[in-house]
Amino acid sequence: MIKIGIVGAGGYAGVTLLSILLRHPEAEVVWLMSEEAHKGKKISELYPQLKGICELPCDTLDNFDKQLAKIDLIFLALPHGISINYVPKMIKAGKKVVDLGADYRFHDEAVFKKWYQLEHPDKAVLAEAIFGLPELYKNEIKKARLIGNPGCYPTASILGLSPLVKHKLVDNNSLIVDAKSGVSGAGRGVSLKVHFCERNEGIMAYAVNNHRHMGEVSYQIGKIAGENINVTFVPHLVPMNRGILATCYAKLKSQKSKVKSNELVSLYKEFYKEAPFVRVYESGEPCTKNVAGSNYCDIGISINEESGTVIVMSVIDNLVKGAAGQAVQNMNLICGFEETLGLKQIALYP
Amino acid sequence: MIKIGIVGAGGYAGVTLLSILLRHPEAEVVWLMSEEAHKGKKISELYPQLKGICELPCDTLDNFDKQLAKIDLIFLALPHGISINYVPKMIKAGKKVVDLGADYRFHDEAVFKKWYQLEHPDKAVLAEAIFGLPELYKNEIKKARLIGNPGCYPTASILGLSPLVKHKLVDNNSLIVDAKSGVSGAGRGVSLKVHFCERNEGIMAYAVNNHRHMGEVSYQIGKIAGENINVTFVPHLVPMNRGILATCYAKLKSQKSKVKSNELVSLYKEFYKEAPFVRVYESGEPCTKNVAGSNYCDIGISINEESGTVIVMSVIDNLVKGAAGQAVQNMNLICGFEETLGLKQIALYP
Amino acid sequence: MIKIGIVGAGGYAGVTLLSILLRHPEAEVVWLMSEEAHKGKKISELYPQLKGICELPCDTLDNFDKQLAKIDLIFLALPHGISINYVPKMIKAGKKVVDLGADYRFHDEAVFKKWYQLEHPDKAVLAEAIFGLPELYKNEIKKARLIGNPGCYPTASILGLSPLVKHKLVDNNSLIVDAKSGVSGAGRGVSLKVHFCERNEGIMAYAVNNHRHMGEVSYQIGKIAGENINVTFVPHLVPMNRGILATCYAKLKSQKSKVKSNELVSLYKEFYKEAPFVRVYESGEPCTKNVAGSNYCDIGISINEESGTVIVMSVIDNLVKGAAGQAVQNMNLICGFEETLGLKQIALYP
Amino acid sequence: MIKIGIVGAGGYAGVTLLSILLRHPEAEVVWLMSEEAHKGKKISELYPQLKGICELPCDTLDNFDKQLAKIDLIFLALPHGISINYVPKMIKAGKKVVDLGADYRFHDEAVFKKWYQLEHPDKAVLAEAIFGLPELYKNEIKKARLIGNPGCYPTASILGLSPLVKHKLVDNNSLIVDAKSGVSGAGRGVSLKVHFCERNEGIMAYAVNNHRHMGEVSYQIGKIAGENINVTFVPHLVPMNRGILATCYAKLKSQKSKVKSNELVSLYKEFYKEAPFVRVYESGEPCTKNVAGSNYCDIGISINEESGTVIVMSVIDNLVKGAAGQAVQNMNLICGFEETLGLKQIALYP
Repeated sequence: MIKIGIVGAGGYAGVTLLSILLRHPEAEVVWLMSEEAHKGKKISELYPQLKGICELPCDTLDNFDKQLAKIDLIFLALPHGISINYVPKMIKAGKKVVDLGADYRFHDEAVFKKWYQLEHPDKAVLAEAIFGLPELYKNEIKKARLIGNPGCYPTASILGLSPLVKHKLVDNNSLIVDAKSGVSGAGRGVSLKVHFCERNEGIMAYAVNNHRHMGEVSYQIGKIAGENINVTFVPHLVPMNRGILATCYAKLKSQKSKVKSNELVSLYKEFYKEAPFVRVYESGEPCTKNVAGSNYCDIGISINEESGTVIVMSVIDNLVKGAAGQAVQNMNLICGFEETLGLKQIALYP
Repeated sequence: MIKIGIVGAGGYAGVTLLSILLRHPEAEVVWLMSEEAHKGKKISELYPQLKGICELPCDTLDNFDKQLAKIDLIFLALPHGISINYVPKMIKAGKKVVDLGADYRFHDEAVFKKWYQLEHPDKAVLAEAIFGLPELYKNEIKKARLIGNPGCYPTASILGLSPLVKHKLVDNNSLIVDAKSGVSGAGRGVSLKVHFCERNEGIMAYAVNNHRHMGEVSYQIGKIAGENINVTFVPHLVPMNRGILATCYAKLKSQKSKVKSNELVSLYKEFYKEAPFVRVYESGEPCTKNVAGSNYCDIGISINEESGTVIVMSVIDNLVKGAAGQAVQNMNLICGFEETLGLKQIALYP
Repeated sequence: MIKIGIVGAGGYAGVTLLSILLRHPEAEVVWLMSEEAHKGKKISELYPQLKGICELPCDTLDNFDKQLAKIDLIFLALPHGISINYVPKMIKAGKKVVDLGADYRFHDEAVFKKWYQLEHPDKAVLAEAIFGLPELYKNEIKKARLIGNPGCYPTASILGLSPLVKHKLVDNNSLIVDAKSGVSGAGRGVSLKVHFCERNEGIMAYAVNNHRHMGEVSYQIGKIAGENINVTFVPHLVPMNRGILATCYAKLKSQKSKVKSNELVSLYKEFYKEAPFVRVYESGEPCTKNVAGSNYCDIGISINEESGTVIVMSVIDNLVKGAAGQAVQNMNLICGFEETLGLKQIALYP
Repeated sequence: MIKIGIVGAGGYAGVTLLSILLRHPEAEVVWLMSEEAHKGKKISELYPQLKGICELPCDTLDNFDKQLAKIDLIFLALPHGISINYVPKMIKAGKKVVDLGADYRFHDEAVFKKWYQLEHPDKAVLAEAIFGLPELYKNEIKKARLIGNPGCYPTASILGLSPLVKHKLVDNNSLIVDAKSGVSGAGRGVSLKVHFCERNEGIMAYAVNNHRHMGEVSYQIGKIAGENINVTFVPHLVPMNRGILATCYAKLKSQKSKVKSNELVSLYKEFYKEAPFVRVYESGEPCTKNVAGSNYCDIGISINEESGTVIVMSVIDNLVKGAAGQAVQNMNLICGFEETLGLKQIALYP
């Protein structure tokens, strides 16, 4: 039984993480931090679904030092630029850390700075962080003590595109991700953008050509390709709570233009044969509903033969596989538990 | 480990039941029946969220006799009037049965006939059926082998009204339930009524004064009161997938008109002190979101002192506490398992 | 052609009003005021649907005195307690005023103070204000120069209950309104309450027993009855943008208990025979979708004969008949135009 | 005043058309046809929002010959393959026809046959049909008597891509349309696909690489380009009632790679300077909400400079500009009315 602290427990990713861990057979949540405004409240007051299930109080980050001794592993679910102030001392104290934010996802500081306008204060700690996408880096994660948990859009996009890029089937300059997300991806903070009436009954793109996850997708896909890649990435807000669909487009290289859909399906299945949470469809299109509340990434594949374009549809629950579930998957690997432990929840349907 | 058969696995209640049982430590689902149209398909083809998790085929009811030997307990999730043709031989064969339909909820055949226009073929079997609301009849359920699992609206309504009626605090002729349901309550069958565009962005009442659940609520509340009661019951369709809110109104008897909200809260807490799935709020209004995907019934209470009206707000997930979760709760009691076994799922939020 | 000013044009009621008036053949909108934060912006920047249609700038209330000369009639769509500082000088300057807020809906200052905790500064002006529900007060409105435009919930509730109360058919102590509203009723201001993810997929009651519209409904129904009445009023938030359904319950007086639904339908039709925007259904239940974007109030009626309870279902578009459309209907009456001028928009369906 | 008949009035496009025409100053709807099942009903029974506004009965197509004399112009809103049996005799009888279906959108019979598996019975009539996209073919439409009204997806897609293709700025083999539609695009017919619970809270692609509108987009874009083009087209179902967003991707030709977003905005504005219903945004992303219920097509443009990809976002209301509104726009042009007559409805927001 490992002792867990959650920093940023009051957000949607935080409470999803808490809910998973409360049912995890090897984890015990012992400390919750939530932002200043909620000081003095119990988490079950912020989220009545936890009444009678978890009555832990919300604490402030100021008390972190006092709490450190009793914690084995810390999850951080914070806006970018905050974790970097706390992680080095956690690592120094011998704790394991899974950071759900962006601060430890880029080893290249220049790329991080370009997208986040921040200088990394501790390069040594950054150097040992592992990008926590177990489908690509399981062995590295098992040995790590600091995980940069991937963003929600990047999880869906990278899982969709990796086999194509790894096998050099497509023109790397042609990669496009048209991503659609439920509103919970924008967090629980209030703004006109997340007002019910402004989102309901409408779909729109946003942050076109400047969303930070475009940087993360391009950087990570580039690492797989072994070259600099600029993925065109356009996120959209969909009037639903949860789920991301990344519809990925890529041009087949001319010499590969005879490849068939069923061959790609086989190739994807082979690529993900040791990935318990990736399901590659023989045919048909995956719906975000089929993974809602679960840690699965479902993938469908089609080829437009006339234009030589591969279409890969990749769906996840943005709060589970795109955040909290993946974080627990990483925890399981770090701690030597079975990869799927506590993560077998079936999608809630409908 | 008990062997389970699910008849009607292809509907929303059926697949919810299957999903719960697939994670239940003492249950093994060995046989699935779904309606004719789906013959030859696996359940994971009807519901892709089950891909790789449950690959059982759908069978037809015609094969039931052949399957009987390997099954210990059968759940039936069928339209009314069908179970009565199968349950007697199941009982005769020594099986335990939880019927999620209406056929075994009424001991008074005349009342059943009034609301369902059906004659019960086997009165002896009917006589031993227990109305499966564990919060009221836990001891009877423990000894039963045939459960008439309550309807979704009745579950929310009866849990909301019972303490008031039991304690004779209110005028029994004043009871009103204004109930609001998500669309999954109408089932998976197609019709204009459940067309997305006809439901989305609208709320309306339906089946006013002739919904069969009005009969069930009145009958069961009447049993608690020890007299004939006509509850005014108006169901509404809300543009959401899951959840029921029953807003219940009752006039305090004039000599009880000084009772305060906090006294009622205490009375409800006492009433439900052995009910692990009922949460009575000290204050505030419960939202269906707070129980979505869980087996809880959350209850809020308020009194309009000027008019002497008690307002009780009772929320459940119609597919869990209102159907499949409650059915498993009954199974646990019948089989001698802990009441909450396999039912500790926290609401999926948001 | 009358010259119009709109104060509070940036809210949902304000922009709905503007959209109606831009298509009204006898109105010309010449001045828009929106709150401080938007100063310097055009209304089409706040609401892109107006691009190329209305490019008026948003002004501040500070400039009102300078604008007064060019305006014939002013609409105010403001939070309560602000209009009272401006209306007296508007009236003094000979302008006509339709106030969509609460400040001029109550002639009884004590009742106003009870619900709004405010002292009215100018009793003389208050005294001449008319409650702008044309279905009840058309003749008074025609002669008025100051209208207190009804609230959204009260419009639906009062239209639903008035015929019963006026004809003394029901026990006035039994009146219950279970009201359901789309989220736009909460306005465009941001808060956790209107966060998409907090509202979507959930229904809940709120402000139980203390919503200010309970005061307005009780006061206005009391005026019709000629006695003090306490209506039990419970509002609910529904995951949809627009629309209110008021499900109204009332006990028939014992000597009236033989009245039939079709008799009530006739009585309602007679009551509203000069009301071009009220449609009484012969049978069936009205849906909010059937009035969305229109100025209609659709009413359905049913009687639970066993309990002697009348159920009246009254639906409106909260922003049209519940606010802006009704305000224009009042303008038409004040200005001597046809009552329906510019208001014949058919509901947008689906 | 022209006399109008609507064939297929009972569908969503049909009733939208009827609603527009009922408010059109130069049109009088005199005959409604709806499918067999509704025979004997008034349109206001199918659509209660029309109660008291339009009480015309639904007739059957069998009576068409008898009705022909009194009609000047016929709209057909039917599934493909039916209009071709009626249009030739309408044209022969000297009537004007606007066909909202697919039967008269392709002059190339081979292309039509490829996508619709149908032989055209009357090539002479087909030859004179005009593709009714006024932004491209206004002059031809003015002289036409038979219009093939564009599909919903093609309207958004072609308006989004035409300026790029016409000006030869992009690689024609790189065109991708990732289209997102509200559920009303699937029509009012019932199926599991449009079940509320199956669509709500989920997004998915469908008919990937075989949607008929891919044929229409490719054919029409090819006509503009003067060469055979295969547009990659992936439609998605979004949980909302109305609206289409076509996110269009195209690679700039290498020699055009220095073009800037603002230059493209100017080029689009010039291209659409005589199109009263196209609004090109200076900046920002259009939302389907901003055109809901209106006849506008709003367009936003962005360039990913690193990958040389133009992103064009084009939004319409699928039932208005994508069907009924565009049909009336065509009627106006054919009949010599002002292009915008009866079509100035502002989007209903929110």
